[in-house]
Amino acid sequence: MAAPRILVPAIGPADRIVTLPDGEAHHVARVLRAAVGDEVSMFDGRGREWIGRVSSVGSGPVTVDVLHETTPAAEPHVRLTLAIGLLKGEQMDTVVRDATMLGASKIVPLVTAHVAVPSRAWKSTTVLERWRRVAIASAKQCGRAVVPEIVPVVRFADFAPFAAPDQPVAADSRLREPILMCVEPRLAARAVDKTAAGEKIARPVAAIVLVGPEGGWSAEEVEQARSAGADLIHLGPRTLRAETVPTVVLTALWTAWGW
Amino acid sequence: MAAPRILVPAIGPADRIVTLPDGEAHHVARVLRAAVGDEVSMFDGRGREWIGRVSSVGSGPVTVDVLHETTPAAEPHVRLTLAIGLLKGEQMDTVVRDATMLGASKIVPLVTAHVAVPSRAWKSTTVLERWRRVAIASAKQCGRAVVPEIVPVVRFADFAPFAAPDQPVAADSRLREPILMCVEPRLAARAVDKTAAGEKIARPVAAIVLVGPEGGWSAEEVEQARSAGADLIHLGPRTLRAETVPTVVLTALWTAWGW
Repeated sequence: MAAPRILVPAIGPADRIVTLPDGEAHHVARVLRAAVGDEVSMFDGRGREWIGRVSSVGSGPVTVDVLHETTPAAEPHVRLTLAIGLLKGEQMDTVVRDATMLGASKIVPLVTAHVAVPSRAWKSTTVLERWRRVAIASAKQCGRAVVPEIVPVVRFADFAPFAAPDQPVAADSRLREPILMCVEPRLAARAVDKTAAGEKIARPVAAIVLVGPEGGWSAEEVEQARSAGADLIHLGPRTLRAETVPTVVLTALWTAWGW
Repeated sequence: MAAPRILVPAIGPADRIVTLPDGEAHHVARVLRAAVGDEVSMFDGRGREWIGRVSSVGSGPVTVDVLHETTPAAEPHVRLTLAIGLLKGEQMDTVVRDATMLGASKIVPLVTAHVAVPSRAWKSTTVLERWRRVAIASAKQCGRAVVPEIVPVVRFADFAPFAAPDQPVAADSRLREPILMCVEPRLAARAVDKTAAGEKIARPVAAIVLVGPEGGWSAEEVEQARSAGADLIHLGPRTLRAETVPTVVLTALWTAWGW
């Protein structure tokens, strides 16, 4: 049984003891029923991880003695942003959970032409918090020390790479993040293997992957992305379930670019 | 809206009209509420597909006029068998659904040392039927004309490649199917990218992929597979959810070998 993993604020070099935030303290004390002396793993959500030992649990705050910093699971070589058309509640939770497990650095929920989720659902102030909780839980489970950033829902046309395609930085191909848009095979000349591995396109430092909602992209969205320099890619001849596409495209890219 | 897809027995060249099997007839008449003249897509589960038009629906059997044979979604270049340690009910349904969508040719449910599913669950005569229904439903949804074969549950030690490693056919490397066993990174020298794409291992005609249950493989099982010639592969540094591993490994292989 691996040591429980706890999300904590950054631990400084002089910190010898950590008082757990309320939610984590409750989890450690009541759910995991940890005892004094139990070993735990603490990570800051930004890529650092420490081994600690519970030094106080019961009535009052839970404290953990910091033993030493440890090497966390390696992050992918590419900082990958997943921008995805909104899916229904549980499907979106699956996307956030699995994209975290598969190493996405950032998740951008998009309102697109064919999004079928009612706006009261994505305009609620609680939905972003829920996705962040899902991402934290997934990071704990999969052993990742980074929790992907999840930004507030944005309209497709306002998403930065499209909203400002003429910025100098976007025009410089050495600095521009490549944009890969997942589309149906009939639209796409290239499968991920040909794009990335077959043709040996150099691995970028960062990239943006666009995944459509259940109903796919509108023709205008495909055109807009193409004008902003997006490469159209496809993921084989079968119709994939919308909430599985992020897992498939991230896996395809890591296979091509290295895990 | 794509035409509904219906699973039918093989349609011969002289067949002009098909009477739908009971289950499909019910689905077409009661669930899809099809009317005479509606176009449907019929596939035989073995890779052939036909376009038809409903010619009779209502009281009595549902019949479809066969219009013409059509080219189904392309099958993968590699006939891939997914042999997987049993997971709990819903997780196993997810595996069957997603492995179908990702082009597996055959699914072998394995009883392994660390399988946590009670034997009354996998010994029930209905479980295999349920998995077959899940595979059929997934084939309909993803547009595949092949329904993967799902064989009865088998013990790891009795699975053919291990039970008979000394057969002449197994000793001949030109005929032997490569076996890839998914293990934790600490056991595996090679990620799928290095194994398949990076080192340019020739794409086989058929292959077997072994995926462990929730609790992973026992040391003996890893040894047994290795003795039978299995290559150990890993899928990156994070711990993947057991029911997601088939999707990830199939995607990695198609990225390496071509979709």
